[in-house]
Amino acid sequence: MARQTRERILDASLAMFNAAGEPNVTTNHIADELGISPGNLYYHFRNKDDIVEQLFSRYETRIDDALLVPEERLPNLEDIWLQLHLVFECMWAYRFVYRDLVDILARNRKLKLRFARIMTRAATSAAAMMRGLVRAGVMHASDGEIRLVAENVLLVATFWLSFSAVRGLRTEVESLDLGRGIHQVMVLIAPFLRDAERAHLSTLASAYSDDATRE
Amino acid sequence: MARQTRERILDASLAMFNAAGEPNVTTNHIADELGISPGNLYYHFRNKDDIVEQLFSRYETRIDDALLVPEERLPNLEDIWLQLHLVFECMWAYRFVYRDLVDILARNRKLKLRFARIMTRAATSAAAMMRGLVRAGVMHASDGEIRLVAENVLLVATFWLSFSAVRGLRTEVESLDLGRGIHQVMVLIAPFLRDAERAHLSTLASAYSDDATRE
Repeated sequence: MARQTRERILDASLAMFNAAGEPNVTTNHIADELGISPGNLYYHFRNKDDIVEQLFSRYETRIDDALLVPEERLPNLEDIWLQLHLVFECMWAYRFVYRDLVDILARNRKLKLRFARIMTRAATSAAAMMRGLVRAGVMHASDGEIRLVAENVLLVATFWLSFSAVRGLRTEVESLDLGRGIHQVMVLIAPFLRDAERAHLSTLASAYSDDATRE
Repeated sequence: MARQTRERILDASLAMFNAAGEPNVTTNHIADELGISPGNLYYHFRNKDDIVEQLFSRYETRIDDALLVPEERLPNLEDIWLQLHLVFECMWAYRFVYRDLVDILARNRKLKLRFARIMTRAATSAAAMMRGLVRAGVMHASDGEIRLVAENVLLVATFWLSFSAVRGLRTEVESLDLGRGIHQVMVLIAPFLRDAERAHLSTLASAYSDDATRE
């Protein structure tokens, strides 16, 4: 029963953080939403930061899984596409982390270090994927180019939801929004692909690009 | 004298917002910092949002100037380099806007519309610059590619300071930090440049790239 309440608090907090932004939700709001007393909430969590950290741990486990690179064989374009889908779905599920990223990390040094570790892992994963494509003969890029492109892959993925919000692109249709983000990441890699793969990518992505640049 | 106090309040607010993040600074903090009474501050500004809007207007004027495209001649790579410097210097001067961008715009509908207009202008400017490079024979890219790359240019520029902070790259050395950001934007355009220009760019940027990817 205690465990059930704990999970209910985490689920409700995640939904409310995602909807309103973490800085705009208090523990009182969360208790109200669940129809429990603030005292009951504080029996399970020390404070709001404690809730944020527990949710961050869930997020961290999921993004770590998404960042795994296939080890027994060379990766192909579909692997990158799939990985981007897993990563973007995880970012969407925990979008409150990305909405106020700088502020949340500035307030919590532990989370700042954990997020920096995720970034480093993501950079390693993105570079490994691209080096795999080069070895497979699908992509032409130097190690230096790959390192720089990997940084832009991280940046575009990490801030896609924020960009989409401030650019006025948000459709409230999750799948379309994520598809556009994934496409903008692929745009970073496309110029380095062999002609055949670039053409294939361009066909796959044309549905997103028409919408993405509509004003 | 009233005018002088007004300007002093704006200057102090900008410095404090930039240092601590706008959500973490109250009008009382600002009055304290200046050694004036809260009542004196409220004589000049209705509330904190009023101060934020006045600073945003200063920022808007400066970024609009930076986004001008040369009209009498075709642009060259140096024009893009210069424009990026002006834009990044403006973003640095008003970095509180970018630090909590999503939250600030979510709380103020007027600023959200004004920022969306700046984004649209920046997209137009970036695309015009690249089409100019194509006409000058320096760049090879279709209109579709230019549209998509322009979106990434906006995204990387807008969130560079945030990325730099969460990635753990910040050096507190303004010029180095901005130089890296400008370089990451140029990386988006580089694959579409003629060989000679790409090599030139790579030489110019090598100082930044060594640092930017150091873990």
